Amino acid sequence: MATATPVILSGGSGTRLWPLSSATRPKQFHSLVGDETLIQATVRRVAGGESAPPLVVCNRAHVAEVVAQLEEAGSPPSKVVVEPMGRNTAPAVAAAALALDPDTVMMVLPADHLIPDEEAFREAMSVAVEVAAGGSLVTFGVVPTRPDTGYGYIEPAGTEGPAHRVERFVEKPDADTAARYVAAGYLWNSGMFVFRADVILEELRRHEPAVVEAVAAALPTDAAGTVVELGEEFGDSPAISIDHAVMERTDRAVVVPLDAGWTDVGSWNSVWEALAPEGGTVTSGEVLAVDVQRSYIRAESRPVAVIGLDDVVVVETPEGVLVMDRRRSQDVRLAAEWRASRDQG
Amino acid sequence: MATATPVILSGGSGTRLWPLSSATRPKQFHSLVGDETLIQATVRRVAGGESAPPLVVCNRAHVAEVVAQLEEAGSPPSKVVVEPMGRNTAPAVAAAALALDPDTVMMVLPADHLIPDEEAFREAMSVAVEVAAGGSLVTFGVVPTRPDTGYGYIEPAGTEGPAHRVERFVEKPDADTAARYVAAGYLWNSGMFVFRADVILEELRRHEPAVVEAVAAALPTDAAGTVVELGEEFGDSPAISIDHAVMERTDRAVVVPLDAGWTDVGSWNSVWEALAPEGGTVTSGEVLAVDVQRSYIRAESRPVAVIGLDDVVVVETPEGVLVMDRRRSQDVRLAAEWRASRDQG
Repeated sequence: MATATPVILSGGSGTRLWPLSSATRPKQFHSLVGDETLIQATVRRVAGGESAPPLVVCNRAHVAEVVAQLEEAGSPPSKVVVEPMGRNTAPAVAAAALALDPDTVMMVLPADHLIPDEEAFREAMSVAVEVAAGGSLVTFGVVPTRPDTGYGYIEPAGTEGPAHRVERFVEKPDADTAARYVAAGYLWNSGMFVFRADVILEELRRHEPAVVEAVAAALPTDAAGTVVELGEEFGDSPAISIDHAVMERTDRAVVVPLDAGWTDVGSWNSVWEALAPEGGTVTSGEVLAVDVQRSYIRAESRPVAVIGLDDVVVVETPEGVLVMDRRRSQDVRLAAEWRASRDQG
Repeated sequence: MATATPVILSGGSGTRLWPLSSATRPKQFHSLVGDETLIQATVRRVAGGESAPPLVVCNRAHVAEVVAQLEEAGSPPSKVVVEPMGRNTAPAVAAAALALDPDTVMMVLPADHLIPDEEAFREAMSVAVEVAAGGSLVTFGVVPTRPDTGYGYIEPAGTEGPAHRVERFVEKPDADTAARYVAAGYLWNSGMFVFRADVILEELRRHEPAVVEAVAAALPTDAAGTVVELGEEFGDSPAISIDHAVMERTDRAVVVPLDAGWTDVGSWNSVWEALAPEGGTVTSGEVLAVDVQRSYIRAESRPVAVIGLDDVVVVETPEGVLVMDRRRSQDVRLAAEWRASRDQG
């Protein structure tokens, strides 16, 4: 792998994995497998070799947690870029690019993804870094395991070899269209990217100049320390994703297919799918499961017994207890909203 | 109601309502409806009027809790008879009978029953006390709501009027037999009795003299205080129920039908049945239930959200969390045994 800097995007509101995650402690700061948290796993997966120390973009409330967790993981951040407010990924990427040397290859990685097959991930990353060093904008295209309607899709220009020019990006499809996409070899848009700092800034200036202007104005004149606090000018940037701002518009986009059990952990069901590829029951903590099929059961602070139920998610934490049909995972927002309204009331 | 003394049997191992109940705090010390605990409701239902202060039979570990809860309920016990070990109900009843005046009418009531229709209960009790004062041994026969195989049945000698000679007691039947019993007007054996102290002792001496001998030897010579500690001789008594020892053998048994929504709270399903006679979902504590049918959800110490599940029991307490198919309620013992083995290990 050529020299590259991990750029960790540590945003996320934390409502989709209630009661584990919360606004004050979103999912990247929790562990789903073993003792390692998601953000720790994210930096570890790309650490070592030619990889530089990571740069993290996060909000003010999470700076201490980010530094503590990365230090514990043996990968203290070279910089922590602090957003005064969330403005989606394009301004976050711009801030990181402006804070790094122009020829740095940036590995842009959300902090809250789960990637079980690390060997496959590292091979794909190695390809991506080489391609990006040559001036392309690389995105990872996850090989679909089902016609999911929850992801955007990428049509690659070819099927042979480890990297392809991007034919086009398409929005989240309906079920029929998703099935067609999967049959045609389209890939899921993962939200992970690799590009040089100078290249992404050049493309941003071309397609969304207001992003770079606002972020440059927000960058403090003295950004030599580890923690770089962006000014309120950051809020003048359009709130736009790096996909919409650049990837869908540039002619330099390349996709590297990734077949590594990846999930963006968007729901408890996706956690279960990632941890139970064979479709069994996954338990964590002090759990008794009797006659339970295809379920995810997690006990954080007290024993949990589940008897005679299939396809359920049961999550116990000091915050509360969630019991749901696994196929209703999107409705966990109802529980998160319920708690948020109580906490304010 | 003629003068009568409530004799509260406060035994029970507490495993069938895990994680609410436990050996140190079995179900009679918890509330299922409102703030009142089951033992408090038991004394309140028979308090006032011609009723004397209650006598309680319990084990040593529960004396303080019994006294505290009955004082809180405004019905402090006249006596607490302490068993050195559990020997089933016949010795417990004998101890109470020996500690009371011979002509006392004893209302023998397990501390852990739930009786929603209190007016119906009081009417039946009034009949029972009058009949018992005349020298009969009265049992309450619960009017069945279904052909349950979990109860013993009583065949009454008649159907007219408020009390009937008992034709016979029958053991827990299979499903076909239960259906036949219900069709024939048999009643459930409730485990609640009313008789005079001298009459039950006379019958016990006739049918199971070893019980009275052992209990009399266990009774301290000075039993004037409130707390009466039985000696180790109590263990010499046969461990036998008052049903087997006397009721099934005597020719003085009378049954008073009771149609009051009674349940012995033998499982979480029976709790649900008692609290949801219309078959709906019952919640207690800080609970969110979305698309949940025919379920019992109880949050003791933390918020519980249940989404998209029918026919479940979810119980959260500081001890742990139980999530089960309501129709598997008998299997809660698996969870209780699991915890007991962990606590010892």
